[in-house]
Amino acid sequence: MLKKNKLTERKIIDIIVNLQDKMKNNPLPFGDDVAAIRIGKGQLAVMKCDMLVAKTDIPKGMNLWQTSRKAVISVISDLAAKGVQPMGILISLGMPRKISENYVRQIGRGMNAAAREYGTHVIGGDTNESTDLTIDVSAFGICKERELIRRDTAKVGDIVMVTGAFGLPALGLKIIKKKMEISKKLKEKAIKAVFMPKARLSEGLTLAKNHLINSSIDSSDGLAWSLYELSKSSNIGFQINRIPIHREVREFAIKNDLDLIDLAFYGGEEYELVITQKPTLYKKTKKKIRTLIPIGHVTENSGKIILKLKNKYRDLEPRGFEHHSNNV
Amino acid sequence: MLKKNKLTERKIIDIIVNLQDKMKNNPLPFGDDVAAIRIGKGQLAVMKCDMLVAKTDIPKGMNLWQTSRKAVISVISDLAAKGVQPMGILISLGMPRKISENYVRQIGRGMNAAAREYGTHVIGGDTNESTDLTIDVSAFGICKERELIRRDTAKVGDIVMVTGAFGLPALGLKIIKKKMEISKKLKEKAIKAVFMPKARLSEGLTLAKNHLINSSIDSSDGLAWSLYELSKSSNIGFQINRIPIHREVREFAIKNDLDLIDLAFYGGEEYELVITQKPTLYKKTKKKIRTLIPIGHVTENSGKIILKLKNKYRDLEPRGFEHHSNNV
Repeated sequence: MLKKNKLTERKIIDIIVNLQDKMKNNPLPFGDDVAAIRIGKGQLAVMKCDMLVAKTDIPKGMNLWQTSRKAVISVISDLAAKGVQPMGILISLGMPRKISENYVRQIGRGMNAAAREYGTHVIGGDTNESTDLTIDVSAFGICKERELIRRDTAKVGDIVMVTGAFGLPALGLKIIKKKMEISKKLKEKAIKAVFMPKARLSEGLTLAKNHLINSSIDSSDGLAWSLYELSKSSNIGFQINRIPIHREVREFAIKNDLDLIDLAFYGGEEYELVITQKPTLYKKTKKKIRTLIPIGHVTENSGKIILKLKNKYRDLEPRGFEHHSNNV
Repeated sequence: MLKKNKLTERKIIDIIVNLQDKMKNNPLPFGDDVAAIRIGKGQLAVMKCDMLVAKTDIPKGMNLWQTSRKAVISVISDLAAKGVQPMGILISLGMPRKISENYVRQIGRGMNAAAREYGTHVIGGDTNESTDLTIDVSAFGICKERELIRRDTAKVGDIVMVTGAFGLPALGLKIIKKKMEISKKLKEKAIKAVFMPKARLSEGLTLAKNHLINSSIDSSDGLAWSLYELSKSSNIGFQINRIPIHREVREFAIKNDLDLIDLAFYGGEEYELVITQKPTLYKKTKKKIRTLIPIGHVTENSGKIILKLKNKYRDLEPRGFEHHSNNV
């Protein structure tokens, strides 16, 4: 329930966006995964910033190296969804006053590790004193405008796919919050999915360079939310007929009476891509991206996401992932 | 004096920079005013991020509109020092939990105002919950590599100049901290200099396009500090023979026994450019930039800044500007 005086993140963004003069002929609308500027010869400069505040964004037990790595991964994931290689990363750090050299080193190493995993470098930044550990990451890349993957171009009849199975981070977050009887192996896998996420950059680049898809978005706010954003931007709907969930998570969930839909669609902190494409391109694409899972198709029902399982229909509510604090 | 366990900002930056793999053939060294990447055809993408934390970076009495405007101005000033027009601005906001719509509106309006003053737009961003109001601004622009003004290219024999008189913000900060007997007019002017700074963007662009100078840096950390940074980067020294101080500040300071050198060289939060050029170009440049003040010349004395006033010599200590908290 919303508390009095508490503005939701969405409301805050709306207020701010509405107060900005808009750039004319902006290649992407404000609020897309990334911002873009035309720089001539059919090219776009693509930028994204994302601020991680440890207090609300970081689950218990995650170390500083992982935290700073994850801050970078989450921005790279947004460029991945557009099919853009990051060329450089800037990082602004707010850190508490009394910290050790080792604290700073872990953060410095984590950001470098993330950048290097994805073929880029941290090339600049800023540091400040702040109460909360704050890591704001900006990434920059260039792409051909006609290769940029958009989120407003899903077509009725497209199949909708994800680049991998969901549910491990959702399970991991549950384990971190509450003790559960679970095999050591699955526990480790689930927690690793939370602490050491991967961005689907090579997949995004492959899709873009080969013009294989019509639209995409990353799934870091939860699969249901990503589908909803795609449907709003493209003015279409979805019928989903498969829960793309990790096999071991499914087995564990069924044994322990956990909700599969909850785990797959509302988990959040998953960095898979959600993409739509012409059905005829599927085989060719699947050859290039083996992890691809088709989960349904695009409908005319603008803004509607229908889940059809065993011939039963239900609406998939467009809730987002909720962060680790007690926030609304 | 340094407290135990308190790392200085410089030490923190050194630790982090040393842990980053370096991009090969980076057109600018890490730690310059901006970061830059070659994007082909002799062009550079130029980027800068700067995090403002209200708790430490904002003096008493400054409102939210001014705060968010100033956060943007300070980044534009860095691009100005390189002679680069900002093409787009991204802003990550960390804001306390319980804020009003009006709070958000003031911030949203301030950032738009700053961007529009300098011919650019806020084109994206992110919002978060945090304990301190945190405004991290990233700016992006493109320039020809041969027009980028560097800080490692000051030449022995160059004259060193500033784009305007110093001291008003330093006086303003003193007034904010401590009551003083001062005329209403000067008080307002000094406080306005703190709350409503301007970036020297048109000056920076003029200097770059016309290849008028050899090096530049902005002066936001204090004039002495900027001279010191220039001298380190270019492996030269300076002899300064003029205190470039605002006339009314000089008069007030003399009457009230305030230190002129302190006000002009260690004030900070001034967004003038500090530049060096061939003496023969001075007349031509002064015609284009009327506010220009020559203050001395470049010497061979690497890292040394000598102040020569009335035939007395003294070293100008390379202290930086100290922020508003009780930090070291």
